Amino acid sequence: MEPRDLDIIRQFVKDELGDGSTRLDVLSEKPQQLYEAFRATGHANWWLPEEYGGSGFSLEDGVEIVNEIAYGDAGVAFTLLVSILGSSVVQLYGSDELKARYLAPMAAGGTFCAALGSEREAGSELNRIGTVAERSGSELVLTGEKFFATNADFADFLLVIARAADDPDEYLAIVVPRDAPGIEIVKRWDVIGLRASHTYAVTLDNCRVPAANQLSGSGLRLLETGLNASRVLIAATAIGIARRIRDHCMTYAKEKRFRGGSLMESPVLAQKLGQMEMQIDVMKSHCRKAAREYDDIMAGPDAAKVFSRKGTLKSALTAKIFCGQTGWSIASAGSEMFGGLGYTDELPIGKLLRDMRYVSIVEGGDDVLRELLFSRYVVPVSRRS
Amino acid sequence: MEPRDLDIIRQFVKDELGDGSTRLDVLSEKPQQLYEAFRATGHANWWLPEEYGGSGFSLEDGVEIVNEIAYGDAGVAFTLLVSILGSSVVQLYGSDELKARYLAPMAAGGTFCAALGSEREAGSELNRIGTVAERSGSELVLTGEKFFATNADFADFLLVIARAADDPDEYLAIVVPRDAPGIEIVKRWDVIGLRASHTYAVTLDNCRVPAANQLSGSGLRLLETGLNASRVLIAATAIGIARRIRDHCMTYAKEKRFRGGSLMESPVLAQKLGQMEMQIDVMKSHCRKAAREYDDIMAGPDAAKVFSRKGTLKSALTAKIFCGQTGWSIASAGSEMFGGLGYTDELPIGKLLRDMRYVSIVEGGDDVLRELLFSRYVVPVSRRS
Amino acid sequence: MEPRDLDIIRQFVKDELGDGSTRLDVLSEKPQQLYEAFRATGHANWWLPEEYGGSGFSLEDGVEIVNEIAYGDAGVAFTLLVSILGSSVVQLYGSDELKARYLAPMAAGGTFCAALGSEREAGSELNRIGTVAERSGSELVLTGEKFFATNADFADFLLVIARAADDPDEYLAIVVPRDAPGIEIVKRWDVIGLRASHTYAVTLDNCRVPAANQLSGSGLRLLETGLNASRVLIAATAIGIARRIRDHCMTYAKEKRFRGGSLMESPVLAQKLGQMEMQIDVMKSHCRKAAREYDDIMAGPDAAKVFSRKGTLKSALTAKIFCGQTGWSIASAGSEMFGGLGYTDELPIGKLLRDMRYVSIVEGGDDVLRELLFSRYVVPVSRRS
Amino acid sequence: MEPRDLDIIRQFVKDELGDGSTRLDVLSEKPQQLYEAFRATGHANWWLPEEYGGSGFSLEDGVEIVNEIAYGDAGVAFTLLVSILGSSVVQLYGSDELKARYLAPMAAGGTFCAALGSEREAGSELNRIGTVAERSGSELVLTGEKFFATNADFADFLLVIARAADDPDEYLAIVVPRDAPGIEIVKRWDVIGLRASHTYAVTLDNCRVPAANQLSGSGLRLLETGLNASRVLIAATAIGIARRIRDHCMTYAKEKRFRGGSLMESPVLAQKLGQMEMQIDVMKSHCRKAAREYDDIMAGPDAAKVFSRKGTLKSALTAKIFCGQTGWSIASAGSEMFGGLGYTDELPIGKLLRDMRYVSIVEGGDDVLRELLFSRYVVPVSRRS
Repeated sequence: MEPRDLDIIRQFVKDELGDGSTRLDVLSEKPQQLYEAFRATGHANWWLPEEYGGSGFSLEDGVEIVNEIAYGDAGVAFTLLVSILGSSVVQLYGSDELKARYLAPMAAGGTFCAALGSEREAGSELNRIGTVAERSGSELVLTGEKFFATNADFADFLLVIARAADDPDEYLAIVVPRDAPGIEIVKRWDVIGLRASHTYAVTLDNCRVPAANQLSGSGLRLLETGLNASRVLIAATAIGIARRIRDHCMTYAKEKRFRGGSLMESPVLAQKLGQMEMQIDVMKSHCRKAAREYDDIMAGPDAAKVFSRKGTLKSALTAKIFCGQTGWSIASAGSEMFGGLGYTDELPIGKLLRDMRYVSIVEGGDDVLRELLFSRYVVPVSRRS
Repeated sequence: MEPRDLDIIRQFVKDELGDGSTRLDVLSEKPQQLYEAFRATGHANWWLPEEYGGSGFSLEDGVEIVNEIAYGDAGVAFTLLVSILGSSVVQLYGSDELKARYLAPMAAGGTFCAALGSEREAGSELNRIGTVAERSGSELVLTGEKFFATNADFADFLLVIARAADDPDEYLAIVVPRDAPGIEIVKRWDVIGLRASHTYAVTLDNCRVPAANQLSGSGLRLLETGLNASRVLIAATAIGIARRIRDHCMTYAKEKRFRGGSLMESPVLAQKLGQMEMQIDVMKSHCRKAAREYDDIMAGPDAAKVFSRKGTLKSALTAKIFCGQTGWSIASAGSEMFGGLGYTDELPIGKLLRDMRYVSIVEGGDDVLRELLFSRYVVPVSRRS
Repeated sequence: MEPRDLDIIRQFVKDELGDGSTRLDVLSEKPQQLYEAFRATGHANWWLPEEYGGSGFSLEDGVEIVNEIAYGDAGVAFTLLVSILGSSVVQLYGSDELKARYLAPMAAGGTFCAALGSEREAGSELNRIGTVAERSGSELVLTGEKFFATNADFADFLLVIARAADDPDEYLAIVVPRDAPGIEIVKRWDVIGLRASHTYAVTLDNCRVPAANQLSGSGLRLLETGLNASRVLIAATAIGIARRIRDHCMTYAKEKRFRGGSLMESPVLAQKLGQMEMQIDVMKSHCRKAAREYDDIMAGPDAAKVFSRKGTLKSALTAKIFCGQTGWSIASAGSEMFGGLGYTDELPIGKLLRDMRYVSIVEGGDDVLRELLFSRYVVPVSRRS
Repeated sequence: MEPRDLDIIRQFVKDELGDGSTRLDVLSEKPQQLYEAFRATGHANWWLPEEYGGSGFSLEDGVEIVNEIAYGDAGVAFTLLVSILGSSVVQLYGSDELKARYLAPMAAGGTFCAALGSEREAGSELNRIGTVAERSGSELVLTGEKFFATNADFADFLLVIARAADDPDEYLAIVVPRDAPGIEIVKRWDVIGLRASHTYAVTLDNCRVPAANQLSGSGLRLLETGLNASRVLIAATAIGIARRIRDHCMTYAKEKRFRGGSLMESPVLAQKLGQMEMQIDVMKSHCRKAAREYDDIMAGPDAAKVFSRKGTLKSALTAKIFCGQTGWSIASAGSEMFGGLGYTDELPIGKLLRDMRYVSIVEGGDDVLRELLFSRYVVPVSRRS
């Protein structure tokens, strides 16, 4: 990525997302015009490999990009980043034919894909999913109900995790075209923040796809692999939201009269903003580091194998946990810095607070991730930090 | 207060506010029917003295009542409690005639009053208010803009804090009938939580009232006095919201499958709920203690003088700070206990989180209250805890 | 208790414990002269009933007394309070003869008793204790190793919790005179704070006592009952330590030059001290409330039965958890308020920090108490706060 | 640095510092044998440039080295790292002659230097120092009292910050040989942790040094420059202490019986250790990043100028604040994980807790550093993270 790429993103944020106001804080239809504008920047799905017509930006580049977009609106950032989960799994574990068929159009058209993993009864415990894939000749027949699937309605394809009908211990990851018969969007979730994003409940009812659409490897492991990228980028949205909160505080402080001067001169304010700045600085360091760890594997000759062996990367877990907690601390402090005005919709802090909340919740709560961290990276002595 | 009084309140909460759902989470018109129902319980403005036809319940009783109502909806609780600020100042510092004219109807009709203190440029620094009261014969003429005034539109009267036109160092507290000419409701604030409550910006433009409507004493001191009661009751709303959050967590945990059993069996859940329960228990102890301190003064022969001398009570400050912080800690933890569902409007946790936020913001942020606490109760050695 | 009782305690603290300095921060022999001085105040074992020659002070009185002593030195406070565990169990569940034999001398001589509950392998899980009581004619023969027993060496008697040799599900609580043969003080623990107190590992080797020394009821339940009193008083030590920290901060701030004035004028300092004061105020409210709950039961006609039915009281649990956490927060903040000096032994903050730590550790860590709170007071809907 | 260099350090830690026990937790004389052993590894003062005979390791290498040593003992780590403050200032701002005279012996002999900045009345406000340098012919005559000076007694030279006698606004940084007449070690500080380190109060009484011993540039700015390196390495000690705490917890958990198994199987333990691991991982990322920022400047052609212009680096500030806070959170949690044993000296947790405390105190408390961060890196919009 060149510096000018980031300039383009910043210009998009300025033009389209404006001042972090509440304009996007509605459960709108997909803001088509906005995504057209992003596609026009040439950076939609920036991570797709050059061989499929993408920009081939690294995950570390992605951290910067997401940080900038989330500074504008975290819901837009989440919408634009979350396809990386599905596409990176296809890139790593799909046949050449699948990659050509599904990744190239995403690069060309700036379109979306969606991951269909979690179910009502299988959120943190994915091994309990009930969606079933039955082999029927050269086809797979999928039936089940998926709980949360961001972008699913307008995606090109869905990455579905299912259990083999003939072996309850086998999990499959399958590429399902969005227009396959039997897919029903049950509803769009009404979410408490991130309202420019679109998350759906989806039903699969005897949905048939070619058996070749199955990716190679265990479905649960493949999902873990894909989450490495999206979790780091979700963590990075916390940086953007936090920077926006900090800047709102500073703008307010400059104009707010306080003891014969402005609030800017308050030593108590200095302490709070100093603390925020410290936290932002650390979030940046760690997200970049986590991204580099991912990039290093991705750049290696055996990326698919290495990811498959490692599954969930430690730094992806720690980045999401850390940025969720730290972002919430910043948003909580921020929401007390505007007096009574901060409790009204005159200022965007209420929206920013609600947006921030998702970082600790989406793609694994802290309890789930900490337990994973413990069993995979604390119990084995050699894997400790 | 008899135990059956609390039973009546609980029945009202059950009948009218239901399950803490998001039904009241809209900026509705004043839910007239709901307040009629509360009036029908005979407990509206429960604190008004019996001599004016009120129930004469203590502030400690009030803590229980508010706790119960806030368990149903904190916006409704805030609407029903906040008249205590204005009415208690009238009760303590008004002439017999004023008391008869304004308190008796409030007791009889379950109506409201509003306090008009803060201004855009004078939030935490009330000594900078710009609203002016000019003496004109036997009248006072009020002009100014008030920023936040809960219940103002439908109140019987407004308690206005103004600066004397002829002495910038003199502050007055004046009872202004809502229907006095020159009062304009500029707008209703769109708030991020507590959406069943109604807070307004209000303009006074050459609004004339009899000079006898002035209460005796410095306006700023009188406002401090009135805030003792409302701050303790605001603190008590945090208890109700917190109990609702706890109960939602327990209901969810009972039904949520987890590792072959229910989430109820999770030791990690036990830790979190144990911590919440501890926090709730302490909030209750302290709110009651703060209320008793207030009640003891109120029951004394020189209540008006004692309050006037003491101004802001220490325990009222500490109750609001503590319950604001503790409530937020509970709401933050609670919002992470429902997985992805907790980020949707299927569950009321998003609303409860937004509702809780007000405790630390309304009627003085923590910074303001801590500084007051420091200068009044830490610097003088004899007043330390 | 009369106000002058507290004055006497304060004078003792001033005369004997001085300025909270590090003088007592050594693993001295039992500072005999100091305990003589306390006995001379006439308030040693202040809680013992008047019928046995004690002062009969309530637990709420005890909270005030312990607060004052801990302001001087928490190790001394702990030494002086912890006999309440054993003596209150004897008072509630002992025969008249046992009470006369053991409580009267404690009241007369200001002597000590010790509880021997926990073992190396049975800390938080007391049902796993290995100390065994064998019935042998009219005697009980005790054998086992007890891990932590404060005051044991110089106690009049030990309250030993043991398992019946003939029924592994039966637990006994037995009064054992300190001078019974077979008791060995294995060692005194070298502790990280509270160094004026004395905690021992004790071995019982075929230690014979009359069968009549067994108290009536299950040993584990009796221990729970006794812990109610000591846990509330341990919580109260946190108040005293916290007040001392606050006062040290204020003394330092007054003398410390800061930007052309003194540190007292720093708004950042005001915030920190305001927060501490709030926390101290809440700790006081809650400890008193917990003590009143205990006192109310103790004053009832069926105290022994009620305690036996209730076991661990909720407020005793929440007081200890809350004061442990809050005290630690105060001590942590306090230890950063003296610049580099705060890391030296020139100031007592290092000692106060170490002393404070025990509140969260002794007589049950937070995890253990929260789990108890959850299972006893959150799961049963009717027992929730 | 090669991997084997780190192996050598680890071996030193294993051989000389052992199991993080309390052996070094005494105010011993300088443990000469121990420092001989470190010198024997060939890595003493590992950062000194190769041209003066040093190893020329980067600050990023230093983070790893300090992490390893602090895993053994933080006091030893602090002793071994803190000379970087003085030596890097000499390296950047000293004449060739000074560098040859003072840096080469440090590289050859593994000896120490000390920085003498703070004074009793000038801790966080160094511009108020009272130590004076008077020009007298070709000499400078230094008089004053320095408060905290680690390693001063056995250092080769002292870097003294003084005010010009003839211009109160001019500050000098001067190299003073330890054996210059007029230097008196007033006392060694008795510190609450880090007890293997040695910090002294030092008096300068008409201490004469050649005028050429003055370094080029403002003394206060030069001190700021030097603190960049030492603050990052102090932050890195928190990583080592934290790792040791984590490993102690795991060792204990493996052996501790808990509900019919070992404590290792406790989900509550998993949460706590998962949280610690996350925090350690983030501390590592950020310390390394801060070190790289420093290294990049140091490797540039104008290092002295760039450092002089930038003064305090943002990442050095944020690393120390973050690791101080995070380390304290880990140590606080850790100290509650061993039951009552954790309050005794049987386990090293008490020592580790006291050691950790210094990270937030030494070389600038959080308040001071946050204010610096605010004024230098938040107020100027372009310098924000």
